[in-house]
Amino acid sequence: MLVYQIRPGAYYDSVVLMQLQRALASLPNVVDAGVVMATPANKEILAANNLLPAPAEDTAKPDDLLIVIHAADEPSAQAALAQVDDLLRQRRSGGGDAGFRPKSLATAAKQLPTADWVLVSVPGRFAAGVAEEALDLGKHVLLYSDNVPLADEIRLKQKARERGLLLMGPDCGTAIIHGIGLGFANRVQRGHIGLVGASGTGLQAITAAIHNLGGGVSHAIGTGGRDLKAEVGGITALQALQALANDPATQTIVLVSKPPSAEVAVRLLAAAWHTGKPVVVQFIGYPPPGRRVGNLHFATSLQEAAETAVELGQGTGDEGRGTNDQGQMTNLRALFSGGTLAYELLLCLQPFLTNLHSNIPIQPSQKLADVWRSVGHTVLDLGEDEFTQGRLHPMMDNDLRLRRLRQEAADPTVSLILLDVVLGEGAHPDPASELAPAIAQVARDGLQVAAVVIGTEQDPQDTAAQIAQLEAVGVRVFRTVNQLVEWVVARLLPPPVAQDWPAIQLGQSLSALNVGVASFYESLQAQGTTAVQVDWRPPAGGNEKLMAILAKMKGG
Amino acid sequence: MLVYQIRPGAYYDSVVLMQLQRALASLPNVVDAGVVMATPANKEILAANNLLPAPAEDTAKPDDLLIVIHAADEPSAQAALAQVDDLLRQRRSGGGDAGFRPKSLATAAKQLPTADWVLVSVPGRFAAGVAEEALDLGKHVLLYSDNVPLADEIRLKQKARERGLLLMGPDCGTAIIHGIGLGFANRVQRGHIGLVGASGTGLQAITAAIHNLGGGVSHAIGTGGRDLKAEVGGITALQALQALANDPATQTIVLVSKPPSAEVAVRLLAAAWHTGKPVVVQFIGYPPPGRRVGNLHFATSLQEAAETAVELGQGTGDEGRGTNDQGQMTNLRALFSGGTLAYELLLCLQPFLTNLHSNIPIQPSQKLADVWRSVGHTVLDLGEDEFTQGRLHPMMDNDLRLRRLRQEAADPTVSLILLDVVLGEGAHPDPASELAPAIAQVARDGLQVAAVVIGTEQDPQDTAAQIAQLEAVGVRVFRTVNQLVEWVVARLLPPPVAQDWPAIQLGQSLSALNVGVASFYESLQAQGTTAVQVDWRPPAGGNEKLMAILAKMKGG
Repeated sequence: MLVYQIRPGAYYDSVVLMQLQRALASLPNVVDAGVVMATPANKEILAANNLLPAPAEDTAKPDDLLIVIHAADEPSAQAALAQVDDLLRQRRSGGGDAGFRPKSLATAAKQLPTADWVLVSVPGRFAAGVAEEALDLGKHVLLYSDNVPLADEIRLKQKARERGLLLMGPDCGTAIIHGIGLGFANRVQRGHIGLVGASGTGLQAITAAIHNLGGGVSHAIGTGGRDLKAEVGGITALQALQALANDPATQTIVLVSKPPSAEVAVRLLAAAWHTGKPVVVQFIGYPPPGRRVGNLHFATSLQEAAETAVELGQGTGDEGRGTNDQGQMTNLRALFSGGTLAYELLLCLQPFLTNLHSNIPIQPSQKLADVWRSVGHTVLDLGEDEFTQGRLHPMMDNDLRLRRLRQEAADPTVSLILLDVVLGEGAHPDPASELAPAIAQVARDGLQVAAVVIGTEQDPQDTAAQIAQLEAVGVRVFRTVNQLVEWVVARLLPPPVAQDWPAIQLGQSLSALNVGVASFYESLQAQGTTAVQVDWRPPAGGNEKLMAILAKMKGG
Repeated sequence: MLVYQIRPGAYYDSVVLMQLQRALASLPNVVDAGVVMATPANKEILAANNLLPAPAEDTAKPDDLLIVIHAADEPSAQAALAQVDDLLRQRRSGGGDAGFRPKSLATAAKQLPTADWVLVSVPGRFAAGVAEEALDLGKHVLLYSDNVPLADEIRLKQKARERGLLLMGPDCGTAIIHGIGLGFANRVQRGHIGLVGASGTGLQAITAAIHNLGGGVSHAIGTGGRDLKAEVGGITALQALQALANDPATQTIVLVSKPPSAEVAVRLLAAAWHTGKPVVVQFIGYPPPGRRVGNLHFATSLQEAAETAVELGQGTGDEGRGTNDQGQMTNLRALFSGGTLAYELLLCLQPFLTNLHSNIPIQPSQKLADVWRSVGHTVLDLGEDEFTQGRLHPMMDNDLRLRRLRQEAADPTVSLILLDVVLGEGAHPDPASELAPAIAQVARDGLQVAAVVIGTEQDPQDTAAQIAQLEAVGVRVFRTVNQLVEWVVARLLPPPVAQDWPAIQLGQSLSALNVGVASFYESLQAQGTTAVQVDWRPPAGGNEKLMAILAKMKGG
């Protein structure tokens, strides 16, 4: 027996709806109950639970409150429905037993002028407006709400950045500032690890693990899941990195996210490099360029990110902090004979360099249009079929490589030429005897040559002698691709972008205003900080037409 | 001054051509010289070096030998050209000062009956034929040649597998068998690390690093770069894993490749798991599912793969070797509230499970058509917009999750249900009090529930009490996604595939026949093993038309 009621254009806090649903479901002879805003998604949930009467399916609209009772008999169902208003009156009225509750953010801000933060968790379509109001009041914002349009996110973040404010979110579930959790947050001891995350439970898992491993957290700054998309460009993440770089309490930084857009990854890693602090990077599912490049430590799981951050704090492993040579942004050309070595090089460079091209592209955009002409930064595998048909492999025959070396060196935009030298059985008996003179010949100011030498002291070529021959003509020699990459990145990473926005001030402590989900306010109180709950109601009672009219009147 | 000569349909070994080119380039008044088979690629190289006269560009065909001399004056150029035949007669005739040199593989096999291996490095279009001849003689093959059609590769590998033979390649540059390098190989000490690689210089970099770190190599088996493509299905890699699993000298295995096709990755990792030996996996550029899952250790660089293998050999870290429960292959359903946790779970499961679906797919093929109906193995992020519009987040409100739990448990194909429980500020004050009774209610034979609990002992929910409540109803509780994944994989990984092909016999030592590049033969001699160089010539002198006629005659 299903009975239902539609309350058009009624607005209630989600907590209230959850509580009403539970209360109804527990009434005598009631089997199940549904109390939802009648969005298509919620109607699907009701239908999946046999709680959607056919007429309600058609008539209930997204702005309507839909109440459905499934009871053993009609009288019980009707009795339950009749109690709705009573139950709603008894509802927890948000903010517990607080006294005066301001109706607007502006009033709340006057009531608690020390509050630098505003938590916004009103429904998505109202959220951008409330967040903007908070920014206009000079507050940092944690925007918990989801379903906020991307265009609003970009506009709000640009506004926040201009004013030296953080806009964390939308869809940002978590932050810890000065030891106080905002939204969802585990209680963790304070310490010197600062975090930036486009990932709510990622931040929670890492901060909880840091605590459980005996470490502590300075600040954990959420950005919202879309911050690292190309359209937003990591505005909040870049501000947060800067804030943690400037924060004396933060010694180690953790950067966690689902894989960012390629372009944003490059920008973020450059910023992370330039913080000068050890940064643990966990771009979940992004192939890491080895374990460490300069001061950047790449983790492969949330747990490992926490472990690495705690270990770094204990002073093990933060040697090799990146030093930027402030070199000019000019081009590299890698002329490799080993396909896998070239592939690993490309893989390791791609998080750091744009304008990267190859005949063995990892991303389609890296594909070299003409393998005979390098463009920008180019990594060539000279052992690919296109170069070896009818001739010996470049590990045996240097002819093609030497010709290409002269070609690249003659290009005035080229500042770095990278080679691999693979020794061992089957390879050229003395590659350095051919490479070194050619390198000496093309030497010029502003051109550096580096090589990775793969070999053992038992190899027939005499590895030490090969290295000596190369070093004698100024080649910088490395024994692994990772070492080579670190050296390259230090030379080619652009210098820190001039940040023409005001630095973030995180203050000395946190107090906050809360607009929306009341339990977030209660949680702030439970943590012993001062907070004010705003008794927020949607403009025009949430009625879209009225809201549009109001907005027009304001605009005029 | 350019002069040139075209020698139609002439076949010469690449080494001979390289030597001729060098000899010509060093003659008086000669500026540069090119001696190549006139393939389009080689003509491009000549053109890039101003060594391609316009008439030769049109008339020289891929089967023709093209000789070009760039000299200071015409008499010098003509003088150089006139010496070509003399220089060719003086050419190193392959195999140094050896005595009788057999003209066919069959004869060579009779001359050195202990040779279990054949190295094939003839030009690509002849290579499949020679490799097949070697298989028919019962030999393992290292097929160095590239430009071998994929269809030939598949056919040859299937034939090899049926006969208990390895066909490494095509385009396989390296192997070390019983301490003897085949093709390109660094000299490394012998030891207990066995390697399988679809990556030539990858294997070289790792074996050299193992040696330089003080470790040693049992065998290093190349597969050719295409072996892990879906079309080939990893035939050689799977045989090689089996061979190393059975090899008592191999204690630790390293598996290296560029990223395999998803399907082949699953098959390979299952096989690696079932070896029961620690396996270091480096799928270069493939996002690793954490550092370790069971006996599988995931590296993020070639160097790290070597370091991990050497460390494992020292007995640190090979605890937690995977134990397969031989469980039935039934379905898992993960009902997560944390988006990042769900994403990490999906990422960690995808190398191990096919038929994996999600509302937050990493691969497009994983996309769930209808988020309200699970299919196969399904990982759900219940915090996604489609589930949360107009209702509380599942970290606060368990209603939706409890309904879904009942739905999944009612599906008889489901054997594992996975949950996350995220504690802390803002979250539900006592989630276990709602989850545990629901889990108890759906309990049935063949259904296991596991949860990852994120929290600290300071969290308001009392983490220990939450865990106790869950464990009291039989939930298996973990504290990280990685631990959960390891437990799941042990339950869901299919049992070892019945391998209906004969096991590989690697014998006790290596001797080999070499067909093609003579320096590979010399290298075998230099390593102190017995070898025979076959004095191979292309059938019908390499003339395609004649070859076709010969093949027809054979066929008829």
